[in-house]
Amino acid sequence: MRGLRTHVLAELPKSEITAIVNVGDDMWLSGVRIAPDLDTIMYTLAGQNDEDRGWGRAGESERVSAELRAYGVGWPWFTLGDLDLGTHLARTSLLRDGLTLSQATARITARWDLGVRLLPSTDSEVETHVEVNDGRSMHFQEWWTRHRAALPARRFIFDSVEQSAPAPGVLEAIAEADVVLVAPSNPVVSIGPILAIPGVRHALRSTSAAVVGVSPIISGRVVRGMADACLTAIGVQTKAHAVAAHYGPRSTDGVIDAWLVDETDASSVAAIEAMGIRSAAVALWMRDAQSSAQVARDALVLAE
Amino acid sequence: MRGLRTHVLAELPKSEITAIVNVGDDMWLSGVRIAPDLDTIMYTLAGQNDEDRGWGRAGESERVSAELRAYGVGWPWFTLGDLDLGTHLARTSLLRDGLTLSQATARITARWDLGVRLLPSTDSEVETHVEVNDGRSMHFQEWWTRHRAALPARRFIFDSVEQSAPAPGVLEAIAEADVVLVAPSNPVVSIGPILAIPGVRHALRSTSAAVVGVSPIISGRVVRGMADACLTAIGVQTKAHAVAAHYGPRSTDGVIDAWLVDETDASSVAAIEAMGIRSAAVALWMRDAQSSAQVARDALVLAE
Repeated sequence: MRGLRTHVLAELPKSEITAIVNVGDDMWLSGVRIAPDLDTIMYTLAGQNDEDRGWGRAGESERVSAELRAYGVGWPWFTLGDLDLGTHLARTSLLRDGLTLSQATARITARWDLGVRLLPSTDSEVETHVEVNDGRSMHFQEWWTRHRAALPARRFIFDSVEQSAPAPGVLEAIAEADVVLVAPSNPVVSIGPILAIPGVRHALRSTSAAVVGVSPIISGRVVRGMADACLTAIGVQTKAHAVAAHYGPRSTDGVIDAWLVDETDASSVAAIEAMGIRSAAVALWMRDAQSSAQVARDALVLAE
Repeated sequence: MRGLRTHVLAELPKSEITAIVNVGDDMWLSGVRIAPDLDTIMYTLAGQNDEDRGWGRAGESERVSAELRAYGVGWPWFTLGDLDLGTHLARTSLLRDGLTLSQATARITARWDLGVRLLPSTDSEVETHVEVNDGRSMHFQEWWTRHRAALPARRFIFDSVEQSAPAPGVLEAIAEADVVLVAPSNPVVSIGPILAIPGVRHALRSTSAAVVGVSPIISGRVVRGMADACLTAIGVQTKAHAVAAHYGPRSTDGVIDAWLVDETDASSVAAIEAMGIRSAAVALWMRDAQSSAQVARDALVLAE
């Protein structure tokens, strides 16, 4: 996202970027509404993220969480940082005042000049739950953070997604886009919950824009996180071309036109193109601002 | 309360103390439920209060509040300390889980050995609002904290109090008490909201225990806070005997049997007794643990 912003600011200054963000990880925690993906993207774009730790706010402290634990309330496996909690409380307060999540997000993100409009995929509370092999079901955050995705997952459930609708602006952003990029995020629990919202797949299939995905898999390994555990659960191999096949070509009921893979996966380009998905192999490791901007540039080139 | 606990622990070790606590100051603030009176009493009994500042937790910080302000959410006139917020979030979390305020209070107070059982006066959200002279109405906290009680009040409204009920244990505590003490708190906005809950006045009038009040007024001045602004609004003079008359004797539709005044108000004892209220003048300034325990002892002596 930062790479895309860098590239667009430098070379396409009149363009606007809208990020449609997963809310499946959202949950009520100690009475506050947390939205990890919205916040992570906001902190990162605002330069407020903790680069060393890889999540949360820089300069974070945990005084409130320590109190909650002392009262025996809250989750021992999930810590709310104090600065982060400021964001959650701002959100919770606005939601309590009757704002929708997208309205609250607009208010909250206005604090910083992000250069990107953040839209939650839906204003409904569509939370991802994981059914594990022994039949138990738990919130995705519990499976991911508490169990480190180590309990074999049987399936992922996007709670009440059938009754949800895209947040205002989501379908319009897809319909009016020059290019739609599918980020190299977890296909199952980050992109999947967005695609599951009624209307989103149709919008992707009917937009006049090219839809380009960037592979989250490099050399058969996930770039970050534990997406392999999720892919295994839905029977998809941890391979760049397997994820392309999972999204599928727009020509036959899928959602992507093109798929960017890493140079180490160049041998899979032919197989991907054989599915009816345009493909190219480039350096996908985003080591710094420059290499990230280059990935964005390459994705936009592939879209043309 | 600390003085009473000190006295009871030392001289009546088999007795139990139940405090019935005002919830009229409670409010939703940035999505969390604050209960200032319950928390102040808890912190004080736990030895966690900030003695210098006179409110809140010792060693407090305000990192979360600073974030809320940066987002433009929250009240510029009310700061939530981080440690204090831990209590509010614990409460909010328990309320969200379906517990009543009294159940949540039992869970929260279990963290410390308070030596006193704290009961909210009601589990309903009965908030005190203030109608000021220009006709505007605001939450008591706004009037008290933001406007420092300087806007002349026309009347105090205990929101939906008619539909409320005493919390479980409140009527039983009054009915089964050996002595009921009315604390030297603000008669209008601290004791008043408790008396307004349906059933409480009746319980006080029908208990076999003596009901003894301690004057919050010494030499025509309030001991702490700005109770005079409240008394003026309801047409009661800031005088020890006027407050006694406001509560009134149980013999004629009031709620107290006896009224302890300060030695500097000894001249009013005769007038108070003429109303049918037993009275005595003693040293009422609670300077330290010893003088506070002495006031509790004197109140219990007057009850006999």
